[in-house]
Amino acid sequence: MSTYQAPLREMLFTMKEIGGLDAVCALPGHEETTPDLVEAILEEAGKFAAGVLDPINYPGDQQGARWQAGVVTAADGFRQAYASFCETGWNAMPARTEFGGQGLPTLVSTAVLEMWKSANMAFSLCQMLTLGAVEAIAHHGSAVLKQRFLPKMVAGEWTGTMNLTEPQAGSDLSAVRSRAVPEGDHYRVSGTKIFITWGEHDLAENIVHLVLARLPEAPAGVKGISLFVCPKFLVNDDGSLGARNDLVCASIEHKLGIHASPTAVMSFGEGPGAIGYLVGEPHKGLGYMFTMMNHARLNVGLEGVGISERAYQHARAYALDRVQGRTLTGSKTIIGHPDVRRMLLDMKARTEAMRALAYYAAGQMDRAHAHADADARARSQALVELLTPVVKGWCTENALGIASDGVQVHGGMGFVEETGAAQYLRDARITTIYEGTTGIQANDLIGRKLAREGGVTMRALIAQMRSDADRIGDGPDAQLVALGQPLRGGLQALADAVDWLLAVSASQPAQAAASAVPFLQLTGTVVGGWLMARSAEAAVAQLSAGSADTDFLSAKVATVRHYMAHVMAEAGGLRDIVTAGAATTLALADHQF
Amino acid sequence: MSTYQAPLREMLFTMKEIGGLDAVCALPGHEETTPDLVEAILEEAGKFAAGVLDPINYPGDQQGARWQAGVVTAADGFRQAYASFCETGWNAMPARTEFGGQGLPTLVSTAVLEMWKSANMAFSLCQMLTLGAVEAIAHHGSAVLKQRFLPKMVAGEWTGTMNLTEPQAGSDLSAVRSRAVPEGDHYRVSGTKIFITWGEHDLAENIVHLVLARLPEAPAGVKGISLFVCPKFLVNDDGSLGARNDLVCASIEHKLGIHASPTAVMSFGEGPGAIGYLVGEPHKGLGYMFTMMNHARLNVGLEGVGISERAYQHARAYALDRVQGRTLTGSKTIIGHPDVRRMLLDMKARTEAMRALAYYAAGQMDRAHAHADADARARSQALVELLTPVVKGWCTENALGIASDGVQVHGGMGFVEETGAAQYLRDARITTIYEGTTGIQANDLIGRKLAREGGVTMRALIAQMRSDADRIGDGPDAQLVALGQPLRGGLQALADAVDWLLAVSASQPAQAAASAVPFLQLTGTVVGGWLMARSAEAAVAQLSAGSADTDFLSAKVATVRHYMAHVMAEAGGLRDIVTAGAATTLALADHQF
Repeated sequence: MSTYQAPLREMLFTMKEIGGLDAVCALPGHEETTPDLVEAILEEAGKFAAGVLDPINYPGDQQGARWQAGVVTAADGFRQAYASFCETGWNAMPARTEFGGQGLPTLVSTAVLEMWKSANMAFSLCQMLTLGAVEAIAHHGSAVLKQRFLPKMVAGEWTGTMNLTEPQAGSDLSAVRSRAVPEGDHYRVSGTKIFITWGEHDLAENIVHLVLARLPEAPAGVKGISLFVCPKFLVNDDGSLGARNDLVCASIEHKLGIHASPTAVMSFGEGPGAIGYLVGEPHKGLGYMFTMMNHARLNVGLEGVGISERAYQHARAYALDRVQGRTLTGSKTIIGHPDVRRMLLDMKARTEAMRALAYYAAGQMDRAHAHADADARARSQALVELLTPVVKGWCTENALGIASDGVQVHGGMGFVEETGAAQYLRDARITTIYEGTTGIQANDLIGRKLAREGGVTMRALIAQMRSDADRIGDGPDAQLVALGQPLRGGLQALADAVDWLLAVSASQPAQAAASAVPFLQLTGTVVGGWLMARSAEAAVAQLSAGSADTDFLSAKVATVRHYMAHVMAEAGGLRDIVTAGAATTLALADHQF
Repeated sequence: MSTYQAPLREMLFTMKEIGGLDAVCALPGHEETTPDLVEAILEEAGKFAAGVLDPINYPGDQQGARWQAGVVTAADGFRQAYASFCETGWNAMPARTEFGGQGLPTLVSTAVLEMWKSANMAFSLCQMLTLGAVEAIAHHGSAVLKQRFLPKMVAGEWTGTMNLTEPQAGSDLSAVRSRAVPEGDHYRVSGTKIFITWGEHDLAENIVHLVLARLPEAPAGVKGISLFVCPKFLVNDDGSLGARNDLVCASIEHKLGIHASPTAVMSFGEGPGAIGYLVGEPHKGLGYMFTMMNHARLNVGLEGVGISERAYQHARAYALDRVQGRTLTGSKTIIGHPDVRRMLLDMKARTEAMRALAYYAAGQMDRAHAHADADARARSQALVELLTPVVKGWCTENALGIASDGVQVHGGMGFVEETGAAQYLRDARITTIYEGTTGIQANDLIGRKLAREGGVTMRALIAQMRSDADRIGDGPDAQLVALGQPLRGGLQALADAVDWLLAVSASQPAQAAASAVPFLQLTGTVVGGWLMARSAEAAVAQLSAGSADTDFLSAKVATVRHYMAHVMAEAGGLRDIVTAGAATTLALADHQF
C-alpha cells in the first residue's frame, strides 16, 4: 500500500503565490512567522503525518472504534498517536496563544491540517472538534469557563464536541428539543443528540461537550436556543476531575466510512440531568455555534482537499508501478494508457485548484483578523464569508469524484478493500453532508452571501478576476495567453449566473434555490480556475527568472492548461443549468416522482 | 427501509415506445410472445423481486458470503431464494428453448433482469455468469459438451463462471499464463485465476468453470489462448456427478460492495491438473469469450440501470416521508426543498434515459437475431455493436453519481449503513470496472466501433436522430418544440466530436484514446437524450389521444425537459473536452505526476 507524503513543494508554492504567505507573515502579530519557520513546521508536520498518522489509517478503518456498555475504545494505535500528537504540540498549534496555542496564521495551520486529513481523516476530526469548541468558548464563554476548560482543551488533555443534531430535527436546528433547567450557578441538561463526532472515546481523560438546548419558556424556533458546556467529568475548583456527569454514549453508528472516528448517540440527563454551564447569554446559542461553524466548514472543505490528495497519491503510485498491456505513450506501466493519464491529471488539477481556493480563503481569513487597515479587514472578511460555502461545498463534491476516480485507476484491485483506495471514497462520502450539506452551503451562498448584499462582494471579485484574466490573457507568454479564453468564458458564465440569481432571488425564491447547487459548482469551478491561472502566471514568472525547479513549474503550467480544457469546460453548461434548469426541477408534483 | 417495487408502468412504456415491443413480438420465432403475456411475465417477476430477492439484499450485504477451507457459504436465505428462482423457471427464462429456456425476446428478458439487479445485484450475478457460460458452450461447444452441461445449467442445477483474469495480467488477456496439457480426450489445466464471480458457493450441486489457458507451444499473445470447461465435480456418462476435480477456491475477496456475491481466487491444478474439455478449436478461446462478453457488457450496463432505479426509489421514499424544515414549495416533507427535488429529478431523468438506451439496444439485438430481412439484421447488429460499450460505460458511470446522490438525499442518515442507501453506492462501484473498465469500453467505441468502419454506423445514427429532432422540434406541440433546440445542440456536439475523432484516430491514436471516455459520455448523453425526446413525443401523442394515464405521461414529458436542461446541457462542454482536451492530458512526463 502506498504511503502518504506531504506535497511540500506544492503546498509552499500555493501558500506563497495564492495564499500570500509573505503578506500574511507581515501582518501585525505574525512578525515571528518567518518563511523559514513555516517551511520547518511543514516539514515536521509532514514527518508526523507520514510516520505516525498514516500507518494507523487503514488498520483503523478496518478495525473501527468499538462501543460496549457506554464505553468507546478507539482503534489500535490511536491512543498512542494522540498522546504523541499532543505532546509534540500539534494539537495546540492552530489555537491562539493566550491558552497555550502557537497563534500561527490560519494559512499555515491550514496546510498542516490538510496533512492530518490526508494521512488520517478519522483521527483529524478529534482535533477539529476540540478546536471548534475552544473557539466557541474563547469567543463567548465567561472568564471562569475559559480558565477552567481552555488550557486543557488546547493542550489536548481534554477534547471537545459539538452537540447540535437531534433525531427528529436533522439540519433544522429550530426544532431542537433538548432542555436545560436552571439550578444555582448551573443548569440541568437533558435530551438526545446524534451524530456526535468523537462524542465518546478513550484518548483523553475528559470530554467537553458543547450542547444546544432550550431554557424553560424559551421562544420557539432558532431564537430560543442556548449553548451549554457539559463536561463528561465535572471539574473541581482546583482543576482536578470530579464526579461523572449525567451523560452517556448510548451507541455509535455503523457507518460507510471514517470508521475510526466514533460517531456517538449522546444521551443527556437520564438521571437528574447533566450539569451544564451556560455559554454567553441565553437564547443566543445558535449564533455562537455559527461562529465556530464557519471555521469548521472551511476545515471540512479542507478534508475534500486532503482526501483528494491522498487518493491521487495512492492512484499515482499504482499507475507508476502496475505493468499491464502495451501503452500508447511508451510508458512501461499503466500511467502510459491515455485514459489512466486523463484520470490522474483530472485528479491532480482539481485537487490543486481546490487547495488554491482553500489556501486563498485562509490567507483572507488572516487578513480579516489582523490587517492594520479596517477597510482591508472588512474586504477580506466579506471574501471569507462569500467563499466559505464554496470551499466547503465545491471541494467536498469534487472529492467524491476524485476518490471514485482513484478507485477506477486501480481497476478490479480498487474494489478490493485491502488495496486501500476504496477507503478514501467511503471516507470522502461524509464530507458533502456534515457541517451542512452541499444544498445548505449553496443556499447560504445564494442567500446570505449573494442576494442579501445585492451581489456586491461577488461582483467585486468578478471584476478582480476579469482584470487578472486580461493581464494573463493579453501578456506575452503563449502558454498563459492560451488560458485567457477559457478563463474569460468561465467568468462570463459566472457573471450571467449571478445576474440571473439576483434577478429572481426575491421574486422566485424556489427557483433560485433549485439552481443553488449548480451555481455553487460554477462558482467553485471559475474561482478555482482563476487561482489556477494565477498559479500558472507565477510559475511562468519563476521559469523566466531562471528557476531551476523546471519540472515542478512546467508541470504546474501543464496542469493549469488541463484544468482549463477539462474542468473550466463545464462552466458554460453549468451556467445554462443555473439559468434555464430551475423551471423543470419544480415542474413535477410530489406524487409524480 | 424502503422496499423495491418494479416500475412496471415505466418499463412497459419504454419497452413499447423505445424498444419496439410490438415489432419485436412480430419477429419470426416470437409470435407467441403477446403483449398480454409480456405484461404477465413482468408482473410475476416484479413479485419475485420484491417478495424474495429484495428482503435478503441488505442482510446479505451485511453478512456477506463466507469462506472457510475452500468452502464458500452464501449469506443466509440465498440458498432458499436460489432454489425458488430455479424452480419457478426464472433462471431458465432468458435462455434458448433447445436446452430448456423459454426463448423470450432479449427485450423482455432485459426488463426482467433489470428487476433482479434492482432487487439484489449480488444475487443476480450468479444467473448472469451461468447464462454467459451457457451462451459460450451453446455457440462453440461440441454436441457432447452441450448435451452434458447445458440442460443442467439452464435449469440452474449447476451454475457457471468465467475464469479470465490472472493476478499479473488484469485486463490484458494476452498475458494469460494458465496451462492446459492434453491427456486423452481431455486436458489437464493449471493456473491461478482471480476475480471469479460466484466461483465457489453452496447454492448448486456443481459449478461449471470456463477457463482461458494456453496449450503447450501455443503462440504468444491473444492468439494462443484456448477455452476449457472445468467442472467442479466431474460428470459421469449417465449425467451423475463423479469425482471432485482438481480445482479449489483459495480465498474470496473482502470487497467494497456486492458482499453477498463471492469473488473467488480459483486455483486449478494443485495436484495432477484439473480435468478440462476444450471448447471449439485450439487458440480461439478469446474470440469465444468475446461472444459472451458483449452480452455480459449489456447486462452490466443494465446493472447501472437497476441499481440507479433502486437508489432512486429508496431516496424518493425517504424524501416523501422525512419532515425537516419549512420547504419553499409547500410540501410537508423534504421533497419540497428545491435541491432535494433537483437531485431526485436528476436521478429519475438519468435512470429513465439509461433504461431507454438499454432497452433500445435489447430491441435491436432481437432484430439482429430474428429479423426476416438480412439487411435489417445487419443494420441492427451494427447498432448493437456500436451501442454495447455505451450501454456498459455510460449507464454504469451514471449509476455512480446517482447512487451517490441517493446517499446525499438522506443527509447524515445516508452515511449510516442501516439506512441502506450506502449499499447501492458500494455495489454500483464495481460496475464501471468489471467486464471491462469504462476506459476499455471507450477504446472499443472509438476503435473497433467507430474508426474501423469510418464512422458509418454512427453517422447513420446521427442522421436518424437529426431527422427525429426535426420532426419533434418543428411539430405543433409547444412542450416538444422546447426539446428541439437542446437536442439539436447535443447532436451537433456529437457530430463535431465524431469528426474530430475520425480525423485523428489513425494519425494520433494516443490523442484519440485520451478523449475516448469523454466521447463515450457524450455519446450516451446525446443518444439517451434522443430516446428521451422520443419518449416525450410518444407521451404527448398518448395524451392527445385521450389517455387517462395523465400523471405518468405528463411526468414523463416534464422529466424529459429536465433531462434536456440538466443533462444534455453538458454536451457542449463534453465536445470541447473531446476536441481540445487531449493535448493537455498527454503534456506531462511520467515523473511530473
